[in-house]
Amino acid sequence: MNLILIEPEELGEDGRAVLCGRRARHIREVLAVAPGDRLCVGLLDGPLGQGEVEASSVDEIQLRCVFVDAPPPRSSVDLLLALPRPKVLRRLFRAVATLGVDRLMLTNAWKTERNYFDTHFLRPEVFRGLLFEGLEQARDTRLPRVSVHKRLRVLVEDELDALSPDTLRLVAHPGAPGRLRDQVPPATTRRCLLAVGPEGGWIDREVEMLGRAGFRAVSMGPRILSSDLACAALLTLVHDARTQTG
Amino acid sequence: MNLILIEPEELGEDGRAVLCGRRARHIREVLAVAPGDRLCVGLLDGPLGQGEVEASSVDEIQLRCVFVDAPPPRSSVDLLLALPRPKVLRRLFRAVATLGVDRLMLTNAWKTERNYFDTHFLRPEVFRGLLFEGLEQARDTRLPRVSVHKRLRVLVEDELDALSPDTLRLVAHPGAPGRLRDQVPPATTRRCLLAVGPEGGWIDREVEMLGRAGFRAVSMGPRILSSDLACAALLTLVHDARTQTG
Repeated sequence: MNLILIEPEELGEDGRAVLCGRRARHIREVLAVAPGDRLCVGLLDGPLGQGEVEASSVDEIQLRCVFVDAPPPRSSVDLLLALPRPKVLRRLFRAVATLGVDRLMLTNAWKTERNYFDTHFLRPEVFRGLLFEGLEQARDTRLPRVSVHKRLRVLVEDELDALSPDTLRLVAHPGAPGRLRDQVPPATTRRCLLAVGPEGGWIDREVEMLGRAGFRAVSMGPRILSSDLACAALLTLVHDARTQTG
Repeated sequence: MNLILIEPEELGEDGRAVLCGRRARHIREVLAVAPGDRLCVGLLDGPLGQGEVEASSVDEIQLRCVFVDAPPPRSSVDLLLALPRPKVLRRLFRAVATLGVDRLMLTNAWKTERNYFDTHFLRPEVFRGLLFEGLEQARDTRLPRVSVHKRLRVLVEDELDALSPDTLRLVAHPGAPGRLRDQVPPATTRRCLLAVGPEGGWIDREVEMLGRAGFRAVSMGPRILSSDLACAALLTLVHDARTQTG
């Protein structure tokens, strides 16, 4: 936990926040703070700052927070992801928040098992906690926006232009001739939308449908990656390609 | 499981292999094969090929294997990794085999907790299974070589030149001025050695010691990544940089 993430309703007008549960336990047991110590804090979807420990008990930590500067920018990368199995999804929520995604669209695909949609990790109160952990790791305050889509075709053909407008669209597909870095203009400021398929991959009809919606297929080499590693690799490459070379 | 990985001692002279346990269960329940079906198989540290299902029972699958071509090349990337906590280490073994690493050196560092070395995931019979799963995902047969080093200084100053000779050495360090892709000549064939620190990062003294051993510090941007995502990001970037642009 490189950042203590605080929700707006936890913050009093005097800058005081009282934390309990997971964060209080971490602050006490792992960070082992004493009154007077300062911690890096962030306000959800707001600025970063410092929190001075005013009181610490078995159940609660009281911080007095001072926030400075503007909130960090939202990521300008969106992710369309065929729903993986629950164990992988759990890791993915954390990873997506750590690596930086603005909008995460979870969708059905031909090779997605229907019962994956029954997982409790798709309940907002559950995945929100996982996204929090990812932000605390990355030292970011910008919560990814998550939506669930049970029909890929409806998402791609009817909803995507509103959800992720004017984006450079890339779909990961093993064996595609294109490479990501050849498709992303260096230091571009254009938003990107990345599509990652299910275990077993997209079927041809899906790649064609994505192609009609403007997605260019890119390969990530000969190795077949699991959903979470494919997302990590794609997000790493796109963030790297968008960064100006010093 | 995109590949059924077979150990040399499981393979008869007639090309037959009888599998039980995890792989047989996966072949039967997930791949749902029938006699006559063909599966992608690989011989550990050997070639890829095809296996025809000859018999399938509740406990066993009998395959008749034909291997073709030369074994895939070993990865030319080594990884020096400060031992993360056991839960992360478990994920890392799989990820490292999936992404492609030749030699994995797990080491102590100032901010590594000593009791991390007590985990059962460091027992070869345990981590070998995790590496297998990673290779089966990536469709590779080359098992990473793993070594455990309780003293970073001894590893770096006395052992590293023999374990990972003549390598381009890079250490991940938040805030470093260099970027990975500026340090790796495009399409280089030189071996690379990547160093990833513990949660909490390397201390200055360690970065200096690594610098004296030829490591150049590279940053991966402002976000702080967990050990497993840092490894995935670094390996992705180094594999990408080494690939000739089409």
